[in-house]
Amino acid sequence: MAPRLSARGHAVPASPIRTLVPLGDQARARGLRVLHLNIGQPDIETPEPMRRRIASLHEKVYAYTPSGGTAEYLAALREYYRRLGFSLGPDEILGTTGGSEALFFALAAVGDHGDEVIVVEPYYTNYSAFATLAGLRLVPLTSRGEDGFHLPPRAAWEKALTPRTRAVILCNPSNPTGTVYTQEEVDRVAGFCRDHGLFLISDEVYREFAYDGRAAVSALSLKAADDMVIVVDSLSKRYSACGIRLGCLVTRNRDVYGAALRMAQARLSPPGLAQVAACALTELGPDYTRGIVTEFQARRDMLYEAVSAVPGVFLRKPEGAFYFVARLPVQDAEDFARWMLTDFQHDGCTVMVAPARGFYATPGLGHDEVRIAYVLERGALSKAVKALAAGLEQYRTAPHSAARLTAAAAPTTTT
Amino acid sequence: MAPRLSARGHAVPASPIRTLVPLGDQARARGLRVLHLNIGQPDIETPEPMRRRIASLHEKVYAYTPSGGTAEYLAALREYYRRLGFSLGPDEILGTTGGSEALFFALAAVGDHGDEVIVVEPYYTNYSAFATLAGLRLVPLTSRGEDGFHLPPRAAWEKALTPRTRAVILCNPSNPTGTVYTQEEVDRVAGFCRDHGLFLISDEVYREFAYDGRAAVSALSLKAADDMVIVVDSLSKRYSACGIRLGCLVTRNRDVYGAALRMAQARLSPPGLAQVAACALTELGPDYTRGIVTEFQARRDMLYEAVSAVPGVFLRKPEGAFYFVARLPVQDAEDFARWMLTDFQHDGCTVMVAPARGFYATPGLGHDEVRIAYVLERGALSKAVKALAAGLEQYRTAPHSAARLTAAAAPTTTT
Repeated sequence: MAPRLSARGHAVPASPIRTLVPLGDQARARGLRVLHLNIGQPDIETPEPMRRRIASLHEKVYAYTPSGGTAEYLAALREYYRRLGFSLGPDEILGTTGGSEALFFALAAVGDHGDEVIVVEPYYTNYSAFATLAGLRLVPLTSRGEDGFHLPPRAAWEKALTPRTRAVILCNPSNPTGTVYTQEEVDRVAGFCRDHGLFLISDEVYREFAYDGRAAVSALSLKAADDMVIVVDSLSKRYSACGIRLGCLVTRNRDVYGAALRMAQARLSPPGLAQVAACALTELGPDYTRGIVTEFQARRDMLYEAVSAVPGVFLRKPEGAFYFVARLPVQDAEDFARWMLTDFQHDGCTVMVAPARGFYATPGLGHDEVRIAYVLERGALSKAVKALAAGLEQYRTAPHSAARLTAAAAPTTTT
Repeated sequence: MAPRLSARGHAVPASPIRTLVPLGDQARARGLRVLHLNIGQPDIETPEPMRRRIASLHEKVYAYTPSGGTAEYLAALREYYRRLGFSLGPDEILGTTGGSEALFFALAAVGDHGDEVIVVEPYYTNYSAFATLAGLRLVPLTSRGEDGFHLPPRAAWEKALTPRTRAVILCNPSNPTGTVYTQEEVDRVAGFCRDHGLFLISDEVYREFAYDGRAAVSALSLKAADDMVIVVDSLSKRYSACGIRLGCLVTRNRDVYGAALRMAQARLSPPGLAQVAACALTELGPDYTRGIVTEFQARRDMLYEAVSAVPGVFLRKPEGAFYFVARLPVQDAEDFARWMLTDFQHDGCTVMVAPARGFYATPGLGHDEVRIAYVLERGALSKAVKALAAGLEQYRTAPHSAARLTAAAAPTTTT
């Protein structure tokens, strides 16, 4: 008798950010240059001080570290937060294996099987996978491209509430939309959480990436919110160190910290070599961050202008992070994304984008949208937009493609 | 209204291997040398070829790797398995963040909320935490020190079966008992799984650590078991590289591989620097392993002889891994373990052991047992046993300790 996969095993979704990878490999095998707009892997160098720590490592035993991270790593994180204006005790911050693990620990700490977590869609698609693993249901609140993906009014939040609601996840600045929520918006969410006894899981891994003079509001700055706030953070984007897999969970709620620490003990420690590199973050001050953010803002400017100019494409100007969601003049953005890799080339290049359907929980939404990440230097981005525009043109006019067209890309077709 | 921790958050157990750490820190602060017999962190150097890969790393961007691991890491693993006699396809092995993550992925793939997994107790305590996180119930089958912790008869397995049983976890060689199961025992478990359509999750991270000419039977060698076997593996112990957090999941079950890959996509990638180091494992052949295993067998010999000679202590000769469970002549091994750190010293030393209660699911078992890891060089182990013997003597004769003594340490008091 053959054993059977669990229902959960069936339900864990494939990553829409990564499922096109094999088609990209095939395109490369055919000699094409594949420009990746699908994944948040910046081309920026990991800071030299971090690489220097690795090069000069003299440890002879790569030993377990404390479950919550080494004293040095935690001290570096506390110093980073101190510079942001947040004073954190040693038992309020826990080192994790990327922001991913911090998110999973947070979900496991706030909900039991069948409980619900409200999330604004489109949302970072891996929230779905972690919720599935934890046995939780994500309840989506739809935000709209026409509104720049800003938050729905309080009434919509109330409508999403059930007796099983345990938490809200807010990603600010938002992956995938690039929206930076205002103080009023964050206060609205916090008020909703407070009024209903919900946790606020605040994913702040893009904290510094806010443009045009904006500043992202950290949930740590909220008044009288110590009991309810769990911040998920990561070094991946801030220091272009995605591959080391290191992040942290920050909370002043004693029960949540204790539970997260016990979860952390189960997996023994966060990656040790990563922690060695990470300790250099104290050498990276406002100048480092300003340089990075200036570069990403320039890329955003360039890409926003170029993508907006493509006939039939709709988007509002992104405000932060290094992503946006754009509506394309196609029926099925996933089909288009595949076609770009299998049937198209432009000057020896093609482009990989992430179909946005996987960023929505509501069926039928996002079918004509893609998430675009601007993590390449401007020359490559410029090439990528040209290829994208040529691809859209060719895809729409190809003889077999009548069924692939929307009647129009008017704003109202999204919802 | 303050939000409340989930029931799961409350239920995740603290690691009995790690909870004494703060008391150890305090003992060190008082100037004592704390000899760690509580944690499987070998003092053996991480192999030079692995450290050389790190020292000579020239990557400027520490980027995400593929979710299942880099091509190089997977090729190295396949070569390692090929040398063991197992030919694995590229879609039968998945790189994970330590054996811990492989175990969690396996549990999530085999069971849904409320399902049951049979495990032989005493077992690696973190199985409990991962089962709790996954919403599964561990059903213990008790093995006994008098039997050298070998497996109970088939009838006991049948008795543990319910309609919710989905899998068996077998750790071979066993952490914490050091037992190496015979071919007949592994066949017995496999037959039980096959007859009832259960998965066999085989934790083989101590595979090479089998002494006195024994060889641990890999579940990969079982006939007609491709559908049911999921092997959990780790580089931590084999290469004394605990801190890098790298392992793998091996299965020929397509559904399980697919589900595990989707879970892996959610957390993006295993640690990248770790994978760089790990690729050197192809440079480490049978000579390397023989040297390590010879050293651990010598430690086992020394420690078994010395611990057996302590009055009132009971254990059978351990067969593998680098742990054993010993019964002490005390009422409450956890109280004793704490007392050793707070109230005792011997020649400027004390010893940290892991109370065994946390390695059992059945209430009342293990209260007078400890797990001892022999991961220190023989000089330190010798000091540790002397301190342990002196500690037991002093603990039993201290005026306040009458309640701490068992009547006797006779074998029958365990069950």
